[in-house]
Amino acid sequence: MGKLKMYTDRMSQPSRAVLIFCRVNGIDFEEIKVDISKEVNPLQKVPAIVHGNLKLSESHAILVYLASAFTGIADHWYPTELSRRAKINSVMDWHHSNLRNGAVNYVIHTTLAPALGRQLNPKAAIEAEKVLLSSLKALEDFWLNGDDGGFLCDNTQPSVADLSMVCELMQLEVLDERDRSRILSPYKKVLQWIENTRTATNPHFEEVHNILYRVKKKLEQQRARTAETGTDPSNRMGGPSKI
Amino acid sequence: MGKLKMYTDRMSQPSRAVLIFCRVNGIDFEEIKVDISKEVNPLQKVPAIVHGNLKLSESHAILVYLASAFTGIADHWYPTELSRRAKINSVMDWHHSNLRNGAVNYVIHTTLAPALGRQLNPKAAIEAEKVLLSSLKALEDFWLNGDDGGFLCDNTQPSVADLSMVCELMQLEVLDERDRSRILSPYKKVLQWIENTRTATNPHFEEVHNILYRVKKKLEQQRARTAETGTDPSNRMGGPSKI
Repeated sequence: MGKLKMYTDRMSQPSRAVLIFCRVNGIDFEEIKVDISKEVNPLQKVPAIVHGNLKLSESHAILVYLASAFTGIADHWYPTELSRRAKINSVMDWHHSNLRNGAVNYVIHTTLAPALGRQLNPKAAIEAEKVLLSSLKALEDFWLNGDDGGFLCDNTQPSVADLSMVCELMQLEVLDERDRSRILSPYKKVLQWIENTRTATNPHFEEVHNILYRVKKKLEQQRARTAETGTDPSNRMGGPSKI
Repeated sequence: MGKLKMYTDRMSQPSRAVLIFCRVNGIDFEEIKVDISKEVNPLQKVPAIVHGNLKLSESHAILVYLASAFTGIADHWYPTELSRRAKINSVMDWHHSNLRNGAVNYVIHTTLAPALGRQLNPKAAIEAEKVLLSSLKALEDFWLNGDDGGFLCDNTQPSVADLSMVCELMQLEVLDERDRSRILSPYKKVLQWIENTRTATNPHFEEVHNILYRVKKKLEQQRARTAETGTDPSNRMGGPSKI
């Protein structure tokens, strides 16, 4: 079987989750960088992998496949025991309909829209914030409310679900810092869980998130200039830009 | 381990998928009927199961768990071979962000809103229709575009993914018949696939969908009365009703 090929755009949080997983677990792969806004792959999604005859999209399916197909992956990433595995599948399914929608849409409609050639949309941002906050509350009160193992579903070591969902929340880094703090600071278990996942997967976690930190810095500089000149950044940025 | 308990609302398509799976595979269970609009279960979702110490929500996670935890389930429902399993996981993940949103929101905003105590929302219906149509196109051109095995991902027998996604599309039964035909009829492979899944899982498929056919009939009668009297049914229904 040929070397694993991985199509990624590091600006996409599911791509980052899959990259970190491979790095942490020493899976050898060739990274093919794709610009989501330009390229078309099956169903126009990254990440996608090619492994032998298998072409696979959807980050959760990829993470689960990699955890099973490669040898030497520690069991905690996707436990063999059926009940533990079932809970990890459950929280990943929940993620699709809740945290993902809330986080992605809030970041786009408050911050990234101009860079994608779209207008900021305060009304859509309000709706997205509701989904994001109720998802954070469910994480705090339900999914992280066990014996305090530090990870989802009462685990003491990270699973593919932790990696996927922490990467999702990491995109909030690009928000205005006060706004990010307003949203996240009430959720103490969520904040601790982000740190636990970061620590468990470093230095790969930070390295793969570098692109996000660069965007964060650029947006901070834009906001500072805007504060000086009083210009609305959503107008100043104009059309599509690579930030 | 005690008997499997299953919390369902047969008006919810994921509940119907799990029920049909258990019936087809001879899994013994106790059904506890829940009215979604009244009851609260973990994260306010049905279906949910209790099996020994395991409490589990999210229909895909439940289907995958049941296919693995009970003996005698034919391999085609959730194949052991990693590549085939990966593709089924992939299409189920895709479903969450595409077909599900499109189908649920279209049905609610064009048809079921008054019964849920909400106003019909033509603008939201237009947005939902876009998602629904692009999902149907992806099903037709990508997920069902193999060697014509008759099921998703080139399979010749149904998997948990077929059951979940066909149940999702079955909710379109409650639409005005001309509208349902307008939406579905261009997608010949999708129509054939619905029939294949129905045939492969009957008589349980039809029995579990009975509740939907009753709602369909009531709504048809309402539409006929509206056509006679010229009254707008969305106003006439007023507040919440059990249809």
